[in-house]
Amino acid sequence: MASTFGQIFRITTWGESHGGGVGVVVDGCPPRLKLSEADIQPDLDRRRPGQSKIVTPRKESDTVHILSGISSTGRTLGTPISMWVKNEDQRSEAYSEMQDKFRPSHADYTYFAKYGIRAWQGGGRASARETIGRVAAGAIAKKILHEKFGVEVLAYVKQVQKIIGAVDPETVTLKDVEANIVRCPDAKVAEKMIRLIEKMRREGNTVGGVVEGIARGVPAGWGEPVFDKLDAELARAMLSLPACKGFESGSGFGGILLTGREHNDPFRARGGKVFTTANRSGGIQGGISNGQTIFFRTAFKPVATVMHEQDTVDESLHNTTLKGRGRHDPCVLPRAVPMVEAMTALVLVDHALRQRAQCA
Amino acid sequence: MASTFGQIFRITTWGESHGGGVGVVVDGCPPRLKLSEADIQPDLDRRRPGQSKIVTPRKESDTVHILSGISSTGRTLGTPISMWVKNEDQRSEAYSEMQDKFRPSHADYTYFAKYGIRAWQGGGRASARETIGRVAAGAIAKKILHEKFGVEVLAYVKQVQKIIGAVDPETVTLKDVEANIVRCPDAKVAEKMIRLIEKMRREGNTVGGVVEGIARGVPAGWGEPVFDKLDAELARAMLSLPACKGFESGSGFGGILLTGREHNDPFRARGGKVFTTANRSGGIQGGISNGQTIFFRTAFKPVATVMHEQDTVDESLHNTTLKGRGRHDPCVLPRAVPMVEAMTALVLVDHALRQRAQCA
Amino acid sequence: MASTFGQIFRITTWGESHGGGVGVVVDGCPPRLKLSEADIQPDLDRRRPGQSKIVTPRKESDTVHILSGISSTGRTLGTPISMWVKNEDQRSEAYSEMQDKFRPSHADYTYFAKYGIRAWQGGGRASARETIGRVAAGAIAKKILHEKFGVEVLAYVKQVQKIIGAVDPETVTLKDVEANIVRCPDAKVAEKMIRLIEKMRREGNTVGGVVEGIARGVPAGWGEPVFDKLDAELARAMLSLPACKGFESGSGFGGILLTGREHNDPFRARGGKVFTTANRSGGIQGGISNGQTIFFRTAFKPVATVMHEQDTVDESLHNTTLKGRGRHDPCVLPRAVPMVEAMTALVLVDHALRQRAQCA
Amino acid sequence: MASTFGQIFRITTWGESHGGGVGVVVDGCPPRLKLSEADIQPDLDRRRPGQSKIVTPRKESDTVHILSGISSTGRTLGTPISMWVKNEDQRSEAYSEMQDKFRPSHADYTYFAKYGIRAWQGGGRASARETIGRVAAGAIAKKILHEKFGVEVLAYVKQVQKIIGAVDPETVTLKDVEANIVRCPDAKVAEKMIRLIEKMRREGNTVGGVVEGIARGVPAGWGEPVFDKLDAELARAMLSLPACKGFESGSGFGGILLTGREHNDPFRARGGKVFTTANRSGGIQGGISNGQTIFFRTAFKPVATVMHEQDTVDESLHNTTLKGRGRHDPCVLPRAVPMVEAMTALVLVDHALRQRAQCA
Repeated sequence: MASTFGQIFRITTWGESHGGGVGVVVDGCPPRLKLSEADIQPDLDRRRPGQSKIVTPRKESDTVHILSGISSTGRTLGTPISMWVKNEDQRSEAYSEMQDKFRPSHADYTYFAKYGIRAWQGGGRASARETIGRVAAGAIAKKILHEKFGVEVLAYVKQVQKIIGAVDPETVTLKDVEANIVRCPDAKVAEKMIRLIEKMRREGNTVGGVVEGIARGVPAGWGEPVFDKLDAELARAMLSLPACKGFESGSGFGGILLTGREHNDPFRARGGKVFTTANRSGGIQGGISNGQTIFFRTAFKPVATVMHEQDTVDESLHNTTLKGRGRHDPCVLPRAVPMVEAMTALVLVDHALRQRAQCA
Repeated sequence: MASTFGQIFRITTWGESHGGGVGVVVDGCPPRLKLSEADIQPDLDRRRPGQSKIVTPRKESDTVHILSGISSTGRTLGTPISMWVKNEDQRSEAYSEMQDKFRPSHADYTYFAKYGIRAWQGGGRASARETIGRVAAGAIAKKILHEKFGVEVLAYVKQVQKIIGAVDPETVTLKDVEANIVRCPDAKVAEKMIRLIEKMRREGNTVGGVVEGIARGVPAGWGEPVFDKLDAELARAMLSLPACKGFESGSGFGGILLTGREHNDPFRARGGKVFTTANRSGGIQGGISNGQTIFFRTAFKPVATVMHEQDTVDESLHNTTLKGRGRHDPCVLPRAVPMVEAMTALVLVDHALRQRAQCA
Repeated sequence: MASTFGQIFRITTWGESHGGGVGVVVDGCPPRLKLSEADIQPDLDRRRPGQSKIVTPRKESDTVHILSGISSTGRTLGTPISMWVKNEDQRSEAYSEMQDKFRPSHADYTYFAKYGIRAWQGGGRASARETIGRVAAGAIAKKILHEKFGVEVLAYVKQVQKIIGAVDPETVTLKDVEANIVRCPDAKVAEKMIRLIEKMRREGNTVGGVVEGIARGVPAGWGEPVFDKLDAELARAMLSLPACKGFESGSGFGGILLTGREHNDPFRARGGKVFTTANRSGGIQGGISNGQTIFFRTAFKPVATVMHEQDTVDESLHNTTLKGRGRHDPCVLPRAVPMVEAMTALVLVDHALRQRAQCA
Repeated sequence: MASTFGQIFRITTWGESHGGGVGVVVDGCPPRLKLSEADIQPDLDRRRPGQSKIVTPRKESDTVHILSGISSTGRTLGTPISMWVKNEDQRSEAYSEMQDKFRPSHADYTYFAKYGIRAWQGGGRASARETIGRVAAGAIAKKILHEKFGVEVLAYVKQVQKIIGAVDPETVTLKDVEANIVRCPDAKVAEKMIRLIEKMRREGNTVGGVVEGIARGVPAGWGEPVFDKLDAELARAMLSLPACKGFESGSGFGGILLTGREHNDPFRARGGKVFTTANRSGGIQGGISNGQTIFFRTAFKPVATVMHEQDTVDESLHNTTLKGRGRHDPCVLPRAVPMVEAMTALVLVDHALRQRAQCA
């Protein structure tokens, strides 16, 4: 199940950075949903290379084709939706040195150790291109959540290295996120982030940061009690993204500094509705949504490809050095935003359907 | 699959804090492994209430019974191993007030929202008693990892509120961990932690912290490329534990402050073996183990039950207050250590078998 | 997943014929269902040894204990329901010869080939006792189907060796089935079946036959288009029962003799309801229920344990002979009836919930 | 999981008969297997329309494209293999009448009942085109079984309506099967079958029959004890094929007529190898292979599309009639042979890997 995600709303991604393309099969989608490529493409455009001066200049239009699962009237049939994006800008020669050498802190060595073979051109399945399938499937998930359940999923850049933005999860909008190329809704801080990323690019260096994800309007009761807790599923979903090294829900690691008296979220009721007067739980208690805004933070490490000589080994296990070449992101965060949204939506829509199955 | 974990080595836990007990069914265990209750009980003893002055004084012997899956010669048959622990010290009266009121930052409200019914005596499946099944199954997983694959799994308390211990993941031993009741291998810091927890108990308050988990001896090649990345599975496993709010692998959130040049782990080879001269990757690259020590940190929030009046609502949605009663942990961390070990071992043994299946 | 069945309503069985008992964990059960042992025991009584003169006289009360998942008010909590039945009448000495020899047409040899170890006392997991967990879980499934979906599941003995009963799937009742000890609703034919089985027992021989399973009231739309077709799932469910060697749905193997013109089921509509004027499809078309009565037949081979010397080999691979001893069924069919009902109900309830998940 | 099959070697099919094509994603394939389209195409050619005078004359080249999962040196990478076949000969106008009317004994009505929408052009997912993905994936499975495990999978037409061929499962070869267009290795009987099918076509009628499947060289020990018995999995796999109505393993329904003494397969050993002197078990005992040839029979009903007026209803639930048009198979069996082989191979390769995982 390495390439399959979800229990009921279930996606299977495929494809390497070099070859016939990348894609996804979405199974278990509710029928009769109005759906076309126009619902998918915008999120792919937010993910694609070449969208701004602070991301990799690789030229990929990332145009999605829906091959199945849609009726002649433009509605989902309930059967698998197959989506395909061609690979366009493949320059294997940029990777020729990697044919024999393992890039430090990449997946070259571990793939080779696992499979005894690897797609050295562009990183194979470890390439960020693999996330195209997720983002495409996530666009469908977001549409269902929005139209059928009134749930809004959003992510944004919260931090780039030491630069931290101020964003209110309760009020931030997609428009705020898309207002600048780094996707940090705090406009002033965004400027600083952009300058830092540009500096890094000039220096052939890279930088990481934090993406915050939120979901508003999730009703109380989604999630499961034990292994499939909503925050556990979100953690897995996020850590499955390339370069993600950490996840925290609600108060997270910072909550450790508080005592129980300070940390608890008091319940109140008004007009037959329950709410909490604080939200250190991040909208999830005991693995199940409590009706408050879900929010969490994810740490993305600095991109591993730097334009400097670094120590490494080759396939014959000789010590050598390697210097990054080609066109790479100095910072993965602006492009990670739609990925975080997609994975969040995929977790939530699956649990929405699971809740309907068992407890409707 | 709320109560099932793993693909090949697969466990299903059951049971509430009040009722006929708790247990676990382990399916997919390799056959012919020498196994008896004596292999399981030590970890249950590390988890159980009443083990020291800084944990809840509930009296539960937590004695495990293996009901199936073992031959008359004391070896695993390859068929499901069913394990059962009776509930002993049940005092429903201690929970009578919870019958109607939702405890703040507990799972009472969310379970009720989800199921329309709840086991108010002790928190039902959200009780820490649910983890008995995990720890019992984890003991089997640890034994397989140790005997068949030479892998050692260990966890320890790294931090209690603001008090942080110094521990070397490469050299720490189980004996170090068990040397004191808080399970922090840094003896001096452990004293401080114990004093803080005792102070919290006296004040009817609670405190959280960080448990660090490690796995030594994992060969390169375990894990999967996309959704079932080893760190993604560990993240899910940890966040599925009660009170866990965060997970970070290797450099984690701290790694954000470094640039790519600083963060990368250089490869070196010596005597036909590959290693890295730093381990910011935490032993996992691209979701697959690289042969270095795996390590990660998990944040546990302060226990929600405090002995002070707090705002909440009742089932009729009236505003009210609730004060914790009964016998509770002032800090979950010493008992979380065997839980973190168990979940780590369950993830690893499953991936060990998966690797054998596809790539042997 | 050898011991787990179902996607949403999911059961895991455990236990050998000798040892601490047998049991099942039911996960994904809808909450708030009134449930107690009294709902389970009747089906276990229909399955248990010693119930009549034509089944094995082993003395097992097969009393079920529900250990978890039920509220103090006697309703399902939505969390796992763990059920346990003790083993009582274990006489390992009756099996001592099997410790070294493989019984012909049993699973002794194949278990040994697979696991390199086996529970020779009573056949381990291949024992019919394993089906206790299925029948217990099936009783819950039947209750949900009946109360929430208006579906009735029933099975009966259709044929014993060459003796065939006449039964109308549209009108047969549980009372008809339970009217005699062989569970064939055709009273006259039942007498003949009983006499044949008694004769076989006297001769130390055994006999097989056909159990027919039906489900009435299943709405159109349950099932899945491709791999999880309703009849495919029923086929797997039936063939997973001990001694089952064949499955046919609707017209089955007999339908081969008809041409397409003869075989098709014409649709008609009346009062806004669609029905077919014949039911060679057995209530399932393209893997999905069409609203007509679902019916199918399952072949059970003659019991392998006969009280006569037969050629076999021992664990050292020497040729030898073996003669059945102990207390065995001369015919598995009367006890297979509740098993077939249970597996049918488990398939249907899972698909009922899956349908609700995706298409509600 | 409607469109996903397998636990470790796992396939997901997609696509309707009309639209962008059909395909399959194969995940969990062992790495480093030499693989190209040339390994896949031959089985697709055995499945495709227009291959002979007794199958539908639809013109589809069914040319497969591998889009991912293969290295530049032509070996499997261990990552998902995506395969795609375009739809070419789509004539929606031939189906225009079906836009409103439900074809009797097809899946039109049940899909509509399930999803509230349907792909009326050609039957959507219920089209035999869906099996292209299975046959493509099955070709990989057969290659692995052959090269890595020495297992040969084969199927052939055993019976067309009342005409039955004589075939020895122990000696029949692929060449024998492919020696005639009906794929019955009994040459004389094959002639009669062909004449019958041609007669049926002329009469606008259709006919069904039996395909027998075999696997030679399967070692003892594959399969699982309880729900995932090898014959249970084969039963599900076969019943999941369009038009399949029955499955029997070994002696099957015919075995009922024997007593236990007659039915049992005696074990013998020679030269350190165990075998049985009869094979009524069909190579499987207790759900696990015993080293003998696996064989089973599957019943395929007569094709539902006949060129005669038949009673049916339309979407507005009015009674009406419908006459088949377009280009259809008068008998599905010759094309079902590669489908049966594919599903058999998919079951076996998955269990081969599962066995390695747990018991290696």
